[in-house]
Amino acid sequence: MSINRHDLNETMSKVVEHNGVVYVAGNTADDRSVGMKEQTEQVLAKIDGFLAKAGTDKSKLLAATIYVSDMSQKPAMNEAWSAWVDRDNPPTRACVAVELGTPETLVEIVVNAAK
Amino acid sequence: MSINRHDLNETMSKVVEHNGVVYVAGNTADDRSVGMKEQTEQVLAKIDGFLAKAGTDKSKLLAATIYVSDMSQKPAMNEAWSAWVDRDNPPTRACVAVELGTPETLVEIVVNAAK
Amino acid sequence: MSINRHDLNETMSKVVEHNGVVYVAGNTADDRSVGMKEQTEQVLAKIDGFLAKAGTDKSKLLAATIYVSDMSQKPAMNEAWSAWVDRDNPPTRACVAVELGTPETLVEIVVNAAK
Repeated sequence: MSINRHDLNETMSKVVEHNGVVYVAGNTADDRSVGMKEQTEQVLAKIDGFLAKAGTDKSKLLAATIYVSDMSQKPAMNEAWSAWVDRDNPPTRACVAVELGTPETLVEIVVNAAK
Repeated sequence: MSINRHDLNETMSKVVEHNGVVYVAGNTADDRSVGMKEQTEQVLAKIDGFLAKAGTDKSKLLAATIYVSDMSQKPAMNEAWSAWVDRDNPPTRACVAVELGTPETLVEIVVNAAK
Repeated sequence: MSINRHDLNETMSKVVEHNGVVYVAGNTADDRSVGMKEQTEQVLAKIDGFLAKAGTDKSKLLAATIYVSDMSQKPAMNEAWSAWVDRDNPPTRACVAVELGTPETLVEIVVNAAK
C-alpha cells in the first residue's frame, strides 16, 4: 500500500494518503486578526483545499479534532462548522480547549477522510 | 469502500465506519454531578454502546485519547478505565489535561476500533 | 483483519497493528530532568523502537500529534523533531499545549504509521 504526501515542508506534510484514508495536518487561520467564526471559516476553506488535493471532499470526512483556545467561543466556532459540514455526512468530532501556536490563534482543526 | 454513519446530529456523527475501522466521537458523561471515576464509567458505558452499534466491542479497540480536565484526577479515571478495559486487548492510549466543554465535564474519551 | 498488540501493560498497548496501520501510544521521556530538546529526542528514540517492533520506521509515518506543556518551548521541540524526521517523508502534524502527566513532562507524542 503506497503512501502519497502533498505539500511537504521541513517539519510535516499537509496531506498524507494511505490505504484509502486521507490525513490532513492541523490547520489554523492565516489572518488571525479576526474572530473565532471568521478564523474557523478560513480553516475550513483550507481543509477543503487539502481534501481536494487528495481527490476527496468534506462529504467523506471520517473524524475531526477541533482545538479551540477558549471554550467560551465554541458557539462561534460551531456556527462556522455547522454552515460548512455536510449535514448528511458529518464526521465524528471532539472539541477541547488548549493553548495554540500563537496567542492570536483561536482554532486549529485536524481531520481525516475517506478517499 | 463505503462509509457508514450512525447517530448523526447537526454537527457530527457519533460513530463512523470505514474500511474495517470504527471511529467513535468524543464522549462525555450525561450526569456531571458526579466525580471522575463515575463520569469515566458513564463515558465507557456510552462507548460500549456506540461500538455495539457498529458491530464491534472493546476487545477490538485500536487507539484511545483521554482528555481530563484536571491531571490530579487521572488516578480516579484510571480506576474506572482499568476495571473496564480488556486486559488482553488494550488499545494504545494518550491522556492529557485540557479544558472541556463545561466546567463540570471531567473527562472526554475518543476511541477507534477494528470491526 | 487481525490485530497485533505489543508491549501491553494494565492500561494500554504501546503499539497496535491493524490493516496495514501501526498505532503508537503517547510517549514521554523517561529522564525528565532535562529540557525540551532532550526530552523530545528521548521520545523520538522510543518511537523509533516501537515502530521497529511493528516492522516499520519513521519513513512511513502518517500522522503525528505533539502535546507540549508550554508553547514557548515549541522551537526547542522542533529542533529535535526536524533533526529526526525523514525530510522526504514527513507525517501530517498538529502541535498543541496541554497539561501533561507530571509537571516535569514537557512533551508527549502520538504517531501512526503505515507498515
